[in-house]
Amino acid sequence: MRPESDAWNRALTGEPDGLSRIDTPSLVLDLDAFEANVATMARLARERGIGLRPHAKTHKCASIARRQLQAGAVGLCCAKLGEAEALAAEGIEPLLITAPVSAESKIARLIALNARVRGLAVVVEEPENVKALGEAAAAAGQTLDVLIVNDVGSHRFGVPTVEAAVELGRLIAEQPALRLGGIQGYAGRIQHITGYEERRLLSRSAAAHLGAVRDALREAGLPCPVVTGAGTGTHDFDHEGGVFTDLQVGSYIFMDADYDAVALTPDGSRRFSNALFVLTRVTSCQHDGFATTDAGSKCFALDGPPPRIARGAPQASRYGMFGDQFGKVELPDGGRLPVGTLLTVVPSHCDPTVNLYDAIVCVRGGKVEAIWPIEGRGRTD
Amino acid sequence: MRPESDAWNRALTGEPDGLSRIDTPSLVLDLDAFEANVATMARLARERGIGLRPHAKTHKCASIARRQLQAGAVGLCCAKLGEAEALAAEGIEPLLITAPVSAESKIARLIALNARVRGLAVVVEEPENVKALGEAAAAAGQTLDVLIVNDVGSHRFGVPTVEAAVELGRLIAEQPALRLGGIQGYAGRIQHITGYEERRLLSRSAAAHLGAVRDALREAGLPCPVVTGAGTGTHDFDHEGGVFTDLQVGSYIFMDADYDAVALTPDGSRRFSNALFVLTRVTSCQHDGFATTDAGSKCFALDGPPPRIARGAPQASRYGMFGDQFGKVELPDGGRLPVGTLLTVVPSHCDPTVNLYDAIVCVRGGKVEAIWPIEGRGRTD
Repeated sequence: MRPESDAWNRALTGEPDGLSRIDTPSLVLDLDAFEANVATMARLARERGIGLRPHAKTHKCASIARRQLQAGAVGLCCAKLGEAEALAAEGIEPLLITAPVSAESKIARLIALNARVRGLAVVVEEPENVKALGEAAAAAGQTLDVLIVNDVGSHRFGVPTVEAAVELGRLIAEQPALRLGGIQGYAGRIQHITGYEERRLLSRSAAAHLGAVRDALREAGLPCPVVTGAGTGTHDFDHEGGVFTDLQVGSYIFMDADYDAVALTPDGSRRFSNALFVLTRVTSCQHDGFATTDAGSKCFALDGPPPRIARGAPQASRYGMFGDQFGKVELPDGGRLPVGTLLTVVPSHCDPTVNLYDAIVCVRGGKVEAIWPIEGRGRTD
Repeated sequence: MRPESDAWNRALTGEPDGLSRIDTPSLVLDLDAFEANVATMARLARERGIGLRPHAKTHKCASIARRQLQAGAVGLCCAKLGEAEALAAEGIEPLLITAPVSAESKIARLIALNARVRGLAVVVEEPENVKALGEAAAAAGQTLDVLIVNDVGSHRFGVPTVEAAVELGRLIAEQPALRLGGIQGYAGRIQHITGYEERRLLSRSAAAHLGAVRDALREAGLPCPVVTGAGTGTHDFDHEGGVFTDLQVGSYIFMDADYDAVALTPDGSRRFSNALFVLTRVTSCQHDGFATTDAGSKCFALDGPPPRIARGAPQASRYGMFGDQFGKVELPDGGRLPVGTLLTVVPSHCDPTVNLYDAIVCVRGGKVEAIWPIEGRGRTD
């Protein structure tokens, strides 16, 4: 469990200005922990001479994106065009869309967005898509930045070989309205490998592939100023090979039950603190050994380990779902929790959990300091 | 697989006015199937002399609630106060909140809502809560309808015994601002038992408990006009015992992969058709045997069996998650699906899947006929 701030402790031990006034269920951000996480990652990146391009799929929130830019980020990543539209409407730029945009209606939206955003870029993997983007940008009198996305092991998408990447680079160079901005490779499945050394070795081979693509592009006379990828799980060593120019870290700002199990430092010490919690109340306790809360599977994404109770219930209590609407706190030794008991619970996986809420309640010193809208919530389009 | 309407077939076989114009991922409602489901359940209820009080936790959508009321429903159920507020703002009434409302701030909101809605009721299980509601309603010069909620086996909440229910009934009668409207019991865990006869037997014993509570209340001189509960899983026999006055059916309007496995009729024949689909496109296919789509776990709730592909991929293809943002279609015989291929996918569990979207795209005859906002989305408060 993270060493919690005094303010957080005070809030939860019932001081009158504490969390007890917040309606539940709510998504709550411990601002002290969040700001420390942002500052720590920014300091590491500065010290190591590498850029940060934090991924907004984690938070979908302009207030957070703004703070990441203020801490020195070179830009933000978006998983989907809709996410980029939502953040751009709040003035967030530069933006990199980290998955191909290929449907006809989406290319029209992309071109419209490119007219409004300084520093928009999108990844490409297919010759047909390169042609379609080139024609659409040319028809609009625009220049569109594109990055070649490479498959570094997840097989979700991405150009599979160095040769195919160079061929795609040549195609891009033939499109006057496109500008080749570099390459991307994201080893999603590596990020959550719990052992530090195993993760480091696998990430090194993914980075080596990207390095080979970069070198081959340059040998072919093509530019490759940006090599972007990586995540929180590989942030501690992905600067080492000299391949990446910036890291697409996401979860470090919040952490979650899933990442809590991953050794992010060589000695396993905690570098980032849990800053994101679901605040929930006990709404029924008619039986020994468990209680019912107001946060079920409409409040917690389920693609990870079970949510972990940070505060509000005896140690060894476990949190589970009691259907969509309600949570179940299993209590040791047949205990009971009175109705009204407030619990803070670390979500299984931060990204899809944040996507369930319209706002984040930001807390400091036991007081609500701000409520940040999650502008990109539901923007999976 | 459901016998799909001709219109739906046309739309998906590429007719120019078909689904291909809809942006993806989207939540799509087949209006023909939806209306047939609504009409079928309404007809059955009329024939059997039982009321319907459909549960809005399934759809959170005023347009759907309105159609259920037009088909004869006695009112709508809401799982949370926030859901009721969202539907009341659209003029939906009467509304029954099917879980206790006990936090101080929520009681204030409940009283404010009671001033605006004709026919608001809330369930109670605790003496303290009865007192708090009685005092709040009296202070506001209101009468508030309450139903005693009974535990019929799920243990999520509810008064556990007949005696405790009568005691609570007496407490309610002592509060001049409260009116005892009857009782509720919802056997959530029974609804999804696949075998018809096993489900019928278990539901009968749950109903028997409610019958005993009703009789004991009447013997004590207390009113019990309403006995409400049940769901889609038990709709076919919960009228038999003469205990329920109305059924809280929810999923029948949409159906889902979970309910598709439940025999809802004695001979296992389909009574309700799949009306709800996630529409998604293939966005990448670099490998034999699988393709990547644009709908991942931010588009599908995961608390059920895997989503089922209704159309767009060869039979024996399977849908899984490729992380939060993307889906993975596993194809038989090392097949491929071209980028842009449109798939309709039946979600695992309709309620939490609907809660991920801001709107439902309603389709008939291969054309978009309406887009209905999901007013209660995210209203888990």
